[in-house]
Amino acid sequence: MNSTTDPTLRSFLDVAPDSPFPIQNLPYGVFRRDEDETGTLGVAIGDYVLDLKVVDDFGGFDTPALRDTDAFQRRTLNDFMALGKTAWDEARACVQRLLRADEPFLRDHPQLREMALVRQSQVEMLLPAAIGDYTDFYSSKEHATNVGVMLRGPDNALQPNWLHLPVAYHGRSSSVVVSGTDVRRPCGQTRADNAEAPTFGPSRSLDFELEMGCFVGPGNPLGVPIPVSRAADHLFGMVLVNDWSARDVQRWEYVPLGPFLAKNFATSISPWVVPFAALESFRCAGPAQQPPPLPYLRTAGDQAFDIQLEVFLETAAGDRHRISRSNFKFLYWNVCQQLAHHASNGCNLRPGDLLATGTISGPTPDSYGSLLELAWKGTKPLTLGKEKRVFLEDGDRLTLTGWCQGSGYRVGFGEVTGRILPAEA
Amino acid sequence: MNSTTDPTLRSFLDVAPDSPFPIQNLPYGVFRRDEDETGTLGVAIGDYVLDLKVVDDFGGFDTPALRDTDAFQRRTLNDFMALGKTAWDEARACVQRLLRADEPFLRDHPQLREMALVRQSQVEMLLPAAIGDYTDFYSSKEHATNVGVMLRGPDNALQPNWLHLPVAYHGRSSSVVVSGTDVRRPCGQTRADNAEAPTFGPSRSLDFELEMGCFVGPGNPLGVPIPVSRAADHLFGMVLVNDWSARDVQRWEYVPLGPFLAKNFATSISPWVVPFAALESFRCAGPAQQPPPLPYLRTAGDQAFDIQLEVFLETAAGDRHRISRSNFKFLYWNVCQQLAHHASNGCNLRPGDLLATGTISGPTPDSYGSLLELAWKGTKPLTLGKEKRVFLEDGDRLTLTGWCQGSGYRVGFGEVTGRILPAEA
Repeated sequence: MNSTTDPTLRSFLDVAPDSPFPIQNLPYGVFRRDEDETGTLGVAIGDYVLDLKVVDDFGGFDTPALRDTDAFQRRTLNDFMALGKTAWDEARACVQRLLRADEPFLRDHPQLREMALVRQSQVEMLLPAAIGDYTDFYSSKEHATNVGVMLRGPDNALQPNWLHLPVAYHGRSSSVVVSGTDVRRPCGQTRADNAEAPTFGPSRSLDFELEMGCFVGPGNPLGVPIPVSRAADHLFGMVLVNDWSARDVQRWEYVPLGPFLAKNFATSISPWVVPFAALESFRCAGPAQQPPPLPYLRTAGDQAFDIQLEVFLETAAGDRHRISRSNFKFLYWNVCQQLAHHASNGCNLRPGDLLATGTISGPTPDSYGSLLELAWKGTKPLTLGKEKRVFLEDGDRLTLTGWCQGSGYRVGFGEVTGRILPAEA
Repeated sequence: MNSTTDPTLRSFLDVAPDSPFPIQNLPYGVFRRDEDETGTLGVAIGDYVLDLKVVDDFGGFDTPALRDTDAFQRRTLNDFMALGKTAWDEARACVQRLLRADEPFLRDHPQLREMALVRQSQVEMLLPAAIGDYTDFYSSKEHATNVGVMLRGPDNALQPNWLHLPVAYHGRSSSVVVSGTDVRRPCGQTRADNAEAPTFGPSRSLDFELEMGCFVGPGNPLGVPIPVSRAADHLFGMVLVNDWSARDVQRWEYVPLGPFLAKNFATSISPWVVPFAALESFRCAGPAQQPPPLPYLRTAGDQAFDIQLEVFLETAAGDRHRISRSNFKFLYWNVCQQLAHHASNGCNLRPGDLLATGTISGPTPDSYGSLLELAWKGTKPLTLGKEKRVFLEDGDRLTLTGWCQGSGYRVGFGEVTGRILPAEA
């Protein structure tokens, strides 16, 4: 019996085989039915959203770890993220049972269905959490190597620290936006290669970065590290991340303190947070780590996930091209290592913090996760029908998608998309 | 007539001439009377705190811009910071009048005084705002030069971008703590100069950084820059900042994305936010800027403030030594330039965001703002009585103070202090 016939493995709602949101997924998000609302927690199922406030109101979360929480009454997922694994497991079981083909409670009550289920096409998705701090890692060896080769040549591509620790920096939480938000081309200070002085104006090398991000669940008190063996307990789920980047601004500003205005004009994330419980079946081995990490970063077993990733660029003329295919499993540093490293000095993480992976580039040129790499610093323009691209142009729409392929179903992330608006006049 | 005789320029409360909090100051903070409370807005006056919730409850803010706000009923200053200059001016006038020697309303009502005034020694100070994003600039030319000389030699001390833009990076908002919080020595990954491989353990080069920080008032929408000519409208007030730094961790991790775990284990701030209105009398010229900044960073008039800064190190044995004297006016990039640069790409700032200046070093060795510089990378140990220091040791207490010297009064920032606890076993 597979997922299409077993009534405990399918929903009473029709879900297409290529839908990102079958009953095996059940990602969490925040939606609103109209502009006056502030936000309601929901779970995606097929083309619908299940309203978790409604489920909570009719007593659908009457389990030991959920009975007394008001997390489902909130405007963001932060309080739910804070509850931890037992509560997440119970909530997932409740929602999965409610939506199963063989469970009549919701299925056979039209009035309740009317209240609890709303079409995704009729809602607006909001940011899933109030993001306290947003951290961006740099965990793809292929990406770090590509960038290193372009900047310093093949002999010194990777910095000496790279194989020893998951390099990261703090990004900007205020400018994390939800998929669908247009992105205005930033102005910035840049200096051309042979110019004496810098100038200020619209960025001429606007790029995307194909990333994913983890939302932190329960946090840690300041001064108390999280051992890598416990890291998974602090990780709630994942989203797609597009870390928009102004390469010309970055090149001029980033020495010695790292990227700042080159990144903080916008970072887009997909609205549905796929819980790690839904990704368990897609666990796989990551790259071998050599030299072996120091003990505080050592993990056992399969720590990667087989998540297929695609990048589409749609020009202003409406031509849509897939420009990259990559996979989450290419990442050198895994998410448990990222989280444990982050807290290894006692830095306190909080529920709803976002840890992004950094650009996820694969080993082949068609799997690179940025235009900087795909067009190799402008030297190999991409051909998109009649047009060429080395960086993003005004009117371009950039979309990332990702999914795990199961047997007859997909655990998908949906998409994160954004269109480039011209710079302010 | 000066401030000691003019009843409109002094309070009915006794305020010592060297108190940081005379009626000319009136900084804002958040306090609680006991541990069960969540936080109440207050203003410091002499040895007392004026409870702004009480003032609000008895109608003390009945002015056009304040009549309808509930900002004084909140647990943090964020909503008050968001109100903007007109509201700040009205609030300051209300509080100043209430506390004046010639105003009987509070002075002559013992019951009201009992409710509205509480001794600072009887309250605990909390963080003044929920800090959404914390940004750290690098705006002292002396500091950047000193660090550059140590790393790259005198000929290439300043990076090529430094004189053209206020370099900055995003810090960690979760680990910003209020003065008095002990700081645990962080563990981290470091690599000794001639070592093959890195090791993990307690930092051996724990340092302080003498900084100040601005709280953002009204924010800007994403995508809409703030012109430098309007920057002052978005700046609420200032605090002292100690940006604790683990130099050995920093040296190994910071290439190419900047400081991360070397900084985010703790950043301490003073609890009282001195509004810019209280600093107006101490405006002065900053350093000449050569080359002239690009137009988007060009400011006119006096943009610095004459704020005297001191650093004290108290050993575990209880010996207290002043180890540095500096001044805010040494900063090359002013706070309006910092804010305008930050928003120049459309990055959205929010009320309560904190923009720190970076280490404020002066021109002479006794005015350097970090142990890295004071002991010149360990080569010139500081003598503290019988002890020597190149970096901070367990049990050391580091305290920053700052004030503007008026005629017969001081507009002070109080202090930011923290003691080093040994690393986790």
